[in-house]
Amino acid sequence: MDRVIYLDHSATTPVAPEVLEAMAPYHREHYGNASSLHVYGRKARSAMEESRGAIAERLGVRAEEIVFTSGATEANNLALVGAAYSSAERRHLVTTAIEHHAVLHTARWLEKLGYSVTFVSPDSSGRVDPQAIGEAVQDDTFLVSVMAGNNELGTTQPIEEIGGLCRERGVLFHTDAVQAFGKVPLAMDSVDLLSASAHKLHGPKGVGLLFVRSGVRLTPLFHGGGHEGGRRSGTENVPGIVGLAKATKISFSEQDESAPRLRALRERLIEGVTRVPGSRLNGHRENSLPHIANFSFEAIEGESLVLKLDEEGIAVSTGSACSSPDLEPSHVLVAIGVPPAMVHGSLRVSTGRETTSEDIERFLEILPRAVESLRAYSPFRVGESDVH
Amino acid sequence: MDRVIYLDHSATTPVAPEVLEAMAPYHREHYGNASSLHVYGRKARSAMEESRGAIAERLGVRAEEIVFTSGATEANNLALVGAAYSSAERRHLVTTAIEHHAVLHTARWLEKLGYSVTFVSPDSSGRVDPQAIGEAVQDDTFLVSVMAGNNELGTTQPIEEIGGLCRERGVLFHTDAVQAFGKVPLAMDSVDLLSASAHKLHGPKGVGLLFVRSGVRLTPLFHGGGHEGGRRSGTENVPGIVGLAKATKISFSEQDESAPRLRALRERLIEGVTRVPGSRLNGHRENSLPHIANFSFEAIEGESLVLKLDEEGIAVSTGSACSSPDLEPSHVLVAIGVPPAMVHGSLRVSTGRETTSEDIERFLEILPRAVESLRAYSPFRVGESDVH
Repeated sequence: MDRVIYLDHSATTPVAPEVLEAMAPYHREHYGNASSLHVYGRKARSAMEESRGAIAERLGVRAEEIVFTSGATEANNLALVGAAYSSAERRHLVTTAIEHHAVLHTARWLEKLGYSVTFVSPDSSGRVDPQAIGEAVQDDTFLVSVMAGNNELGTTQPIEEIGGLCRERGVLFHTDAVQAFGKVPLAMDSVDLLSASAHKLHGPKGVGLLFVRSGVRLTPLFHGGGHEGGRRSGTENVPGIVGLAKATKISFSEQDESAPRLRALRERLIEGVTRVPGSRLNGHRENSLPHIANFSFEAIEGESLVLKLDEEGIAVSTGSACSSPDLEPSHVLVAIGVPPAMVHGSLRVSTGRETTSEDIERFLEILPRAVESLRAYSPFRVGESDVH
Repeated sequence: MDRVIYLDHSATTPVAPEVLEAMAPYHREHYGNASSLHVYGRKARSAMEESRGAIAERLGVRAEEIVFTSGATEANNLALVGAAYSSAERRHLVTTAIEHHAVLHTARWLEKLGYSVTFVSPDSSGRVDPQAIGEAVQDDTFLVSVMAGNNELGTTQPIEEIGGLCRERGVLFHTDAVQAFGKVPLAMDSVDLLSASAHKLHGPKGVGLLFVRSGVRLTPLFHGGGHEGGRRSGTENVPGIVGLAKATKISFSEQDESAPRLRALRERLIEGVTRVPGSRLNGHRENSLPHIANFSFEAIEGESLVLKLDEEGIAVSTGSACSSPDLEPSHVLVAIGVPPAMVHGSLRVSTGRETTSEDIERFLEILPRAVESLRAYSPFRVGESDVH
């Protein structure tokens, strides 16, 4: 598999060697349960608390505001359900139509429990208008949840403005920062709750975090030993937490250099891909995370294109990995109004630390041929629909 | 730390070298998201499904009946809350007074949501009478949850009888098998739901499983991408899952040899420790897991004893690691009626794969002196209370 060009960093990333190295002593040497009183337990606890402190420092928040979870799906569920269960008579949630399923489906679940939800629609680039959020907020709104950067499009949201508006209205504000964390600066002062995941930033799978601003009341999802200050029970995944901290440190320290580099690769990608006849960029060209670009192609299926490119040694996706098995069109592309003829023909290209400009050139060489060969078998013809 | 004798395997265990080796390729080589369509994703998915199959085979169940979780706390919460939310008009739960907090506190949480719970008391050895469970079951009971082996005492429960009785009455039966899994045979035919955790059996932290019998309806705790057959959303922790499978294979294959070996160590422990004046064994001498023994000592605090032994190079605990930070007496020892004068002076000794008889002899040499030296500072005197 060493000659495959991996352009699916939004789905997951390889664990960095430095991260594996940092984790190594906690598997067999300092393997204690962080709640144990003896030396093994104390070693484990101090590694965990150092990790918490290091992450908090990078974020400019307090250590006790970091709650470790099993990943971002748990963090998002904890934010929404935990806030709902602690919200007393407030029973209304505001979110957007283009959230990750971990937020969207949790919001739908809250609807089943009797809460009401307003799903604010973005514009055609995937941007959400803060004013639309403001208009959606009601007297009984307990939470606004708007992702920092979209996982399919890359489009970023005006988190500071939305956060400011929430604070004015006395409503909690959560952001799913899974894709933005470690890639772009985060407006921590503007948020009350923020979710992140280690495996998106060259950390291990199975660990993530929820930032919970001091004073925010959250009902836990897991009941038990009362770990994480009573907010998340369960034996702490110390090696995973150490790995998350190391991955955070590396990503935050390289951000100033990596963001412009990835942005340049993205520009080259956009320029190259949109030369393919019957193609379009989905999402915002400028207001975007540096590492994600989403395209649509007329008259082909995204899944077929992913498999065709896979044969050619390129790993990409149609959109969110999490919904790959279902063949529904992406809710994100539908929400931004991608024309029906192109909504099934989407491709997400996401770059990362080890992506080179040679990788991008190689991709741009292979892609047009792949699109063309698939179109040869398509019952549809390019140019038959209005695609822009 | 290499000369410390680790006798706290019920809290956690070192990861086995073979387990780390099995996990290694999935960090940086086959690191794909198991939901991705490309070769990285397919490699990850096939490793995950092979792991699921291997575990199912050891348990004699179907692969699709295994749901991977972040650990046993999540598995226990999913079992109880998931069954409650799927139970329609049935609103009653039966469990015992000596469950792990991950079950007990979840049951208390369900009470807050309006469910009613019967907590069945065990006898003085920690055994639960199946008849008492039968009497507690009501027409609207949706679930009975009784642990396979107690995490503080080691005492095992008559799972087959309780399971048979539940089936007769048409009630789901869950068992928390965290301590029993890989240590003693499990009566899989008798249970509908079973929780286990990797880090108790020389697997990695942050991964566990819930066995869910085909046909059992469970509302998920996490909403999102619909992973694990819609029962547990979230990017799958492939390295962790591979590690859990490897740890399971090793533990199950060594069980026939390790159980009698650990039982012999336990017998020697009981014989040696109960020679200390003012001591007693808590729990059942025969109906017990092979690796856990719990003792009480008059006129001392368990925490002081743990710290004293820690100074002497021995790692043990007072009971559950998960409740170490609080100084409440163990709910398990209270439930089995340990006399007030001894309930604070408890010690749990739990052996494992690398424990030798030399370790036990060394412990038995150090323990009496440690107890004696603490008693020298105690305001209480041995023999002042009725302890047996």
